[in-house]
Amino acid sequence: MGIVLGDNRYGKAETRVVRIVRDTPRHEIRDRNVSTALRGDFVDAHETGDQAHVLPTDSQKNTVLAYAREHGPASPEEYAVAVADRLLEASPYATSAQVRVEEYAWDRVAVGPEGHDHSFVRRGAETRTCAVTVEGRDVYHRVHVLSGLTDLTVLKSTGSEFKGFLEDRFTTLAETDDRVLATSLTAWWRWGPEHPSDWDAAYDDVKAVLLGTFATTYSRALQETLHLMGKAVLEARPALAEIRFSAPNKHHFVVDLSRFGIDNPGEVFHADDRPYGLIEAQVRRDDAADETVAWRDVPGFC
Amino acid sequence: MGIVLGDNRYGKAETRVVRIVRDTPRHEIRDRNVSTALRGDFVDAHETGDQAHVLPTDSQKNTVLAYAREHGPASPEEYAVAVADRLLEASPYATSAQVRVEEYAWDRVAVGPEGHDHSFVRRGAETRTCAVTVEGRDVYHRVHVLSGLTDLTVLKSTGSEFKGFLEDRFTTLAETDDRVLATSLTAWWRWGPEHPSDWDAAYDDVKAVLLGTFATTYSRALQETLHLMGKAVLEARPALAEIRFSAPNKHHFVVDLSRFGIDNPGEVFHADDRPYGLIEAQVRRDDAADETVAWRDVPGFC
Amino acid sequence: MGIVLGDNRYGKAETRVVRIVRDTPRHEIRDRNVSTALRGDFVDAHETGDQAHVLPTDSQKNTVLAYAREHGPASPEEYAVAVADRLLEASPYATSAQVRVEEYAWDRVAVGPEGHDHSFVRRGAETRTCAVTVEGRDVYHRVHVLSGLTDLTVLKSTGSEFKGFLEDRFTTLAETDDRVLATSLTAWWRWGPEHPSDWDAAYDDVKAVLLGTFATTYSRALQETLHLMGKAVLEARPALAEIRFSAPNKHHFVVDLSRFGIDNPGEVFHADDRPYGLIEAQVRRDDAADETVAWRDVPGFC
Amino acid sequence: MGIVLGDNRYGKAETRVVRIVRDTPRHEIRDRNVSTALRGDFVDAHETGDQAHVLPTDSQKNTVLAYAREHGPASPEEYAVAVADRLLEASPYATSAQVRVEEYAWDRVAVGPEGHDHSFVRRGAETRTCAVTVEGRDVYHRVHVLSGLTDLTVLKSTGSEFKGFLEDRFTTLAETDDRVLATSLTAWWRWGPEHPSDWDAAYDDVKAVLLGTFATTYSRALQETLHLMGKAVLEARPALAEIRFSAPNKHHFVVDLSRFGIDNPGEVFHADDRPYGLIEAQVRRDDAADETVAWRDVPGFC
Repeated sequence: MGIVLGDNRYGKAETRVVRIVRDTPRHEIRDRNVSTALRGDFVDAHETGDQAHVLPTDSQKNTVLAYAREHGPASPEEYAVAVADRLLEASPYATSAQVRVEEYAWDRVAVGPEGHDHSFVRRGAETRTCAVTVEGRDVYHRVHVLSGLTDLTVLKSTGSEFKGFLEDRFTTLAETDDRVLATSLTAWWRWGPEHPSDWDAAYDDVKAVLLGTFATTYSRALQETLHLMGKAVLEARPALAEIRFSAPNKHHFVVDLSRFGIDNPGEVFHADDRPYGLIEAQVRRDDAADETVAWRDVPGFC
Repeated sequence: MGIVLGDNRYGKAETRVVRIVRDTPRHEIRDRNVSTALRGDFVDAHETGDQAHVLPTDSQKNTVLAYAREHGPASPEEYAVAVADRLLEASPYATSAQVRVEEYAWDRVAVGPEGHDHSFVRRGAETRTCAVTVEGRDVYHRVHVLSGLTDLTVLKSTGSEFKGFLEDRFTTLAETDDRVLATSLTAWWRWGPEHPSDWDAAYDDVKAVLLGTFATTYSRALQETLHLMGKAVLEARPALAEIRFSAPNKHHFVVDLSRFGIDNPGEVFHADDRPYGLIEAQVRRDDAADETVAWRDVPGFC
Repeated sequence: MGIVLGDNRYGKAETRVVRIVRDTPRHEIRDRNVSTALRGDFVDAHETGDQAHVLPTDSQKNTVLAYAREHGPASPEEYAVAVADRLLEASPYATSAQVRVEEYAWDRVAVGPEGHDHSFVRRGAETRTCAVTVEGRDVYHRVHVLSGLTDLTVLKSTGSEFKGFLEDRFTTLAETDDRVLATSLTAWWRWGPEHPSDWDAAYDDVKAVLLGTFATTYSRALQETLHLMGKAVLEARPALAEIRFSAPNKHHFVVDLSRFGIDNPGEVFHADDRPYGLIEAQVRRDDAADETVAWRDVPGFC
Repeated sequence: MGIVLGDNRYGKAETRVVRIVRDTPRHEIRDRNVSTALRGDFVDAHETGDQAHVLPTDSQKNTVLAYAREHGPASPEEYAVAVADRLLEASPYATSAQVRVEEYAWDRVAVGPEGHDHSFVRRGAETRTCAVTVEGRDVYHRVHVLSGLTDLTVLKSTGSEFKGFLEDRFTTLAETDDRVLATSLTAWWRWGPEHPSDWDAAYDDVKAVLLGTFATTYSRALQETLHLMGKAVLEARPALAEIRFSAPNKHHFVVDLSRFGIDNPGEVFHADDRPYGLIEAQVRRDDAADETVAWRDVPGFC
């Protein structure tokens, strides 16, 4: 019986690369935070300190930067695949490479009918994400693509109830027919083998379906709402195999103003920081393969 | 010679009050973070622990919440004035009250031509702010209003240079004719005695002038750009006495790809976190009174 | 072929409960951030909105608070087991309950030889953690305990090299025989069926072994150092089955002062924020069972 | 009547410089975050974009780094004075220079009786600060030194009351004879013309007086406690002219467990995030000059 090295990976996290497309006077921006990770045969690095198998994380960073020149203008998914393929090529002892991208959106400053050519204001809403895992080479080469978003903060000011729940000795919550429902959504959707021709359009479409479903459905619980959102996305995009959600229930408590002789018909709320409900759920096609490798390095979603 | 109490104030910081207007099926949201502070004769509280002059911060919080019922739908400036007036009324030993508001914008979810009635998505861009100080009572009653914004992140991908600067033995920076200029702007503008009839419209207008000036002027330094933005705002709004800026120079460094045989004609940048230049400047009318009291409790701007 | 609900869980995150033991004039503090999660048969909540199986997260919060009265003075591990057992008891449709605890240490204010009885100063160093998963009932009842820490920031000012690594066309990093090695360590160690009699002492012991090994071993790479730390912990505590690490390589770059005619023999460094290397590794006994369920809900470590 | 440039300053914020003293095998660390700012005649930079008066913030950063070689091992105050003097020397159009330092403490890893020679663990408690302003040259040369700390988090589990306060229609707070008092203290103390010979010892001494007074005095309100702490510091260090505090009242609410048939004699608390009371006060010698310039650039304390 002995002590052995288990699973391991390493990479360069959070390289902040900004790619400006300036071939014409009308510029474009791709503003990204890119993290890479390699798995493979790195036993010697751990056991003897021999680095011969190790492509330094500094070289991974340089790859992220250099590949932004040619591949930066493409969608985050295409860029991530290019970087991951290069990392596998550069690191013969790696068996898989993961590239994760956060992308921050910028709008043109509203000057003239089309907006300004080279002045931008950061949109600041949700962050678009992707996580690409490439494993194997040649005939074993496989590409797994997750697209997603984080910090999409939404709120329904009515059309939400919570009642009929299980009670125990520690239950003090009152049932409600009308509450504020708010969450800051993180979602990841996994593409099957067929990929969209336009990843940016696909992102916009999935986001629109998520928002539209949240807006137009009645909510008996955040769980039900997430399930409906997931179903709607999978129905809208047949190429998707599954979608996973993590959704904090951002509590808005009705303030009791009757103590002051003031009524409060669901109009004044205190938005609490902590604690918060945390609802996590997956919706998938029942014939979808279970692609553990695609999710393995996505914290909170594996 | 002795040791004495100097300047002091106290209040309740960061009450997160959300006011939903739901008189009709088409709801509105005012989502705010409200901080209050009182100055006055609170010597006993410090010297003997006697609290007879002290309106508890808990009561200040209750005032913030209760006043959201009647005054919450109004602009942050009108709401802040109402709360500050009430705090002075409730606390006879206070000589001035300050109410600061951060307001977070929400958009309707894009469903149908007008957007959804009661489902919203947080905009996430800049935060609107105001800081109202009310001092005195009756004929001595004065109201000072600052409006502002924070975290308005803007970027010019060209039209910015930096050269001709002073050099010393520690200067290694190269001059540049074409760089990325980016900042995350905080600005406060002080209203003179005449106030706008529509505070929300005034905010949108000032923000548009700030953005438009940033976009359409050539920049020889962030200092020059801030000065131009300030001048444009004061020219556009005669009721304003002054404007103050704090602007981190968010450095975007061109990556040297020539090491890899790749050119980089100002297209691939690394966005650095720290250190950053920090530029702070005020622009004012030369006949504006120096209203120290309006700025006294605005950290970083007094 | 249809769309189905996949894996799901829900709970109350980040209840900030402080337990003060004041049976005698010499008080004790347990300051914690507690998160709970349940898995089980919650299909109806997702598919029809029926909440009959759902113990509200508010009741879970109340349980966390109420159990602090009796179980709060115990170690975080014992407290977490008590809360998890209660949640399973209260929620007949749950199949497993997880309770995660972050604990913040306080020191007595240094007054007199023993420190003050009831005045404390927050230590502020690493955060102690535990994650307990209880599954099944009666004869199927199983308890999985992970203990850990986060934000243990350590630095070696010499005794660290990095050389002999794989090179590709994007490698520009120079080899080094003497560098600063720094990391902000997160570690989780999993207990086998035998548990320590004194969890607090066990925590102190594991932490001391981690620190001592980091301090006294030469480092050819962060990977090697983590592996040595993991081995030392497993050797010191036979009841442990495995340990997992996540360690950002907090880069300290030697500043080139020769441009100014000043030497810098490894004395002045710039500490960079981003990007950073991220090294993750597991060390385990080769006969340890693979307890997926213990790790399933620990983001970044499953 | 025109629009004019008002007060302005610029500098380089948050250069993270780490100075390791390695003249002997027993190393020392000074880990700092340094910000600089210049005031002076920079009108042209704002009005015409002419940078001839402007020492780039990049050169200021280089100065911070280069001066760490010779002056880094000294106290933060001595280092800051050296950097500020150099900035005034390098920038003939500047009239004053401010250097602010945050310093993070490290302990030796506990190996052997004296701790390890070159392995350290970050202490993580409060951050030590200083803010040095140098104005004028030659006979007009003046040095203003503020020392301070931030994030010193302290708690009294008894010996604190709050009662006898002013009530209005919005008061619902109950009086209490025994509560938890907790704050995360920020303090700045200003030195008169006479400076301590050992700045590090002076810091330790002031901190000890602050903690000792907090611990050993009964509190009728946070205001009273701050006042006592300030008085004790000024009494202990005759060279100090004044001290200023900002202290959030970190509320710990007793949880009502009687709903569950459980008593709670001041033992289980919920630690709330927001809102929080915010108490700010100054204590000074009555004959101390009013050194506005020393405080002018310290956000929240001027």
